[in-house]
Amino acid sequence: MRKVHNYSAGPCILPQQVFEQASKSIENFNDLNLSLIEISHRSKDFIEVMEEARSLVKEVLNVPENYDVLFLQGGATLQFTSVPLNFTKKSSIVSYLNTGLWSKKAIKAASKYASVNVVASSEESNYTYVPSTQEWRVDSDSIYFHYVMNETIQGLAMRDPISSEIPVICDMSSCILSEEVDFHNFDLVYAGAQKNIGPAGLTLVIIKKDFLEKANEDIPDILSYKKNSQAGSMLNTPPTFAWYLAGKVFKWLLKKGGVKSIQKENEKKAKLLYDFIDSSSFYSNPVDKEYRSIMNVPFLLDNENADSLFLEKAEIKGLLNLQGHRSVGGMRASIYNATPFEAVEDLVSFMSDFERSYTGNGK
Amino acid sequence: MRKVHNYSAGPCILPQQVFEQASKSIENFNDLNLSLIEISHRSKDFIEVMEEARSLVKEVLNVPENYDVLFLQGGATLQFTSVPLNFTKKSSIVSYLNTGLWSKKAIKAASKYASVNVVASSEESNYTYVPSTQEWRVDSDSIYFHYVMNETIQGLAMRDPISSEIPVICDMSSCILSEEVDFHNFDLVYAGAQKNIGPAGLTLVIIKKDFLEKANEDIPDILSYKKNSQAGSMLNTPPTFAWYLAGKVFKWLLKKGGVKSIQKENEKKAKLLYDFIDSSSFYSNPVDKEYRSIMNVPFLLDNENADSLFLEKAEIKGLLNLQGHRSVGGMRASIYNATPFEAVEDLVSFMSDFERSYTGNGK
Repeated sequence: MRKVHNYSAGPCILPQQVFEQASKSIENFNDLNLSLIEISHRSKDFIEVMEEARSLVKEVLNVPENYDVLFLQGGATLQFTSVPLNFTKKSSIVSYLNTGLWSKKAIKAASKYASVNVVASSEESNYTYVPSTQEWRVDSDSIYFHYVMNETIQGLAMRDPISSEIPVICDMSSCILSEEVDFHNFDLVYAGAQKNIGPAGLTLVIIKKDFLEKANEDIPDILSYKKNSQAGSMLNTPPTFAWYLAGKVFKWLLKKGGVKSIQKENEKKAKLLYDFIDSSSFYSNPVDKEYRSIMNVPFLLDNENADSLFLEKAEIKGLLNLQGHRSVGGMRASIYNATPFEAVEDLVSFMSDFERSYTGNGK
Repeated sequence: MRKVHNYSAGPCILPQQVFEQASKSIENFNDLNLSLIEISHRSKDFIEVMEEARSLVKEVLNVPENYDVLFLQGGATLQFTSVPLNFTKKSSIVSYLNTGLWSKKAIKAASKYASVNVVASSEESNYTYVPSTQEWRVDSDSIYFHYVMNETIQGLAMRDPISSEIPVICDMSSCILSEEVDFHNFDLVYAGAQKNIGPAGLTLVIIKKDFLEKANEDIPDILSYKKNSQAGSMLNTPPTFAWYLAGKVFKWLLKKGGVKSIQKENEKKAKLLYDFIDSSSFYSNPVDKEYRSIMNVPFLLDNENADSLFLEKAEIKGLLNLQGHRSVGGMRASIYNATPFEAVEDLVSFMSDFERSYTGNGK
């Protein structure tokens, strides 16, 4: 079988053994002679799947006792709407940091519900840095402060914790589980599953119980954090297959030593790739070193006419899905938890060869 | 391997060959040496999956040209909110028929957005019939009329088309694809996938383009039918696996002769079961014959103390998930498209044996 590496930004690579478990469960789950997909979400067997995943995610992320974890649908994008719907009124002020395309989408959605104060933005630089906290203009009357920890498209990450007087809400879609996070610093965290958690169609929400108490009551049940929490994320039929698979990913990660251990691997992978890019005069990454994502590494070729040849040759080598996001161009290597170190070595080796053959230079 | 039959109401039985295809695709999709789950929703391979499913669903359901089909998340329950959000203003009147638990949930959600006129209700009878159209009090100023074609819990179905001066919106979650429907009679139809379409986590929406034009503009993008339609249901990452699997189910159904052919099988299965129940003095189904669902057959045992023994013995025989919904009690056999005729024969045979051994009577 031809060896391939998958650098897709999401849906993306997940552990091979999880695919194998999932494949088996679709044919015959728990030796029931039933497919995982055809069992009721209220059956004993699925309740076990659900409880196990809920308990594993708390363990692997070290979620404090006073937080609830929800398994929802609709992706981070539905959260852009759910967050202001649950916590604001028409006259409310909310503060958002703008560090990339996902920040901007969250701001646009919140503007339908409340008055959005953009505390700072790096849009004018095409999001190559995070504005210094000294420049932030946080309105102290804000109901909450929202930011995106890892901007998947720009490859810009805000990895240091921030100190805030007002409740902090964070979109961790593309970095959750990749590095240690102290959830005490957050009131609400959400993440679309289709990066480090599992397949598309599931959204994880981690919410401080005190903060949950402040949520609006008179909103549609299906969008209410309170109602979803009270129903144990079973207000309606949940995406059972995605929930199952997420549990398998949590288990895989715990066996590998958990988030602390995978963070080291992730940093090592990212360092190899950024070091190579920085040492090359053909490839470049425009993001301030301090704010570079260890999950998504966008890079430009010195000559954009070479882009299609680069992608073509990469694909022949089995290095797949390296095309950058259409809004940024160039390339992007997403190197999530399940990406083996070898995938980055092979990429660097290919990039080096490509540079040499294209320019006649290179190492 | 022990033979089992699955009568779960949803998530529920799907065609065996679809499970086999899905299982294979999770390990290696399209011979890419990648899992279906790890490929981007914007990759060439997934775009093909998506386009094929979209085209197949139009073919199998005979969706008219002037209708759009959307693949969304959140189940029918999110549609309870999306429908009024998209089509009403605070002062709007909307008309709902109340024929069961799902009708009631839709009414509750709509009440947050508009003034709901319940045109008629059979709640006082515990939903054993559909009120005659002559009794309906449809407000002619209503923005739309909403009903649930098949009430999964009560086993109550409204199979005849209705004539209406105002736009008709219908929840077809548990009957779509099971019998022929003329979509010209509807302005918007929605259905959670986890019955006859595919796995939980996907929702199908079929909407008349003229009606779509009337949708509100200033609502959150993710809940906007217009925005989702403009984005080809790719406003954000869709549930790729569920979408893929739905396509395989549509293809399976077309190969079996389509909806016309499966409807005959469904009617035959339902007739066998209802005829047996009606001929027995031990089992009963309270629904008016005219309004009985051919998908969900609830039935009561003459003595509810026998329920747990019935379920225990059924499980030993490999007849699984027959327990009725907690709000109704008794039993429920859901006999969806993928349920083989043999599963109904085996059930009837078991029911007959159980009656005989429990009562000393029976045939």
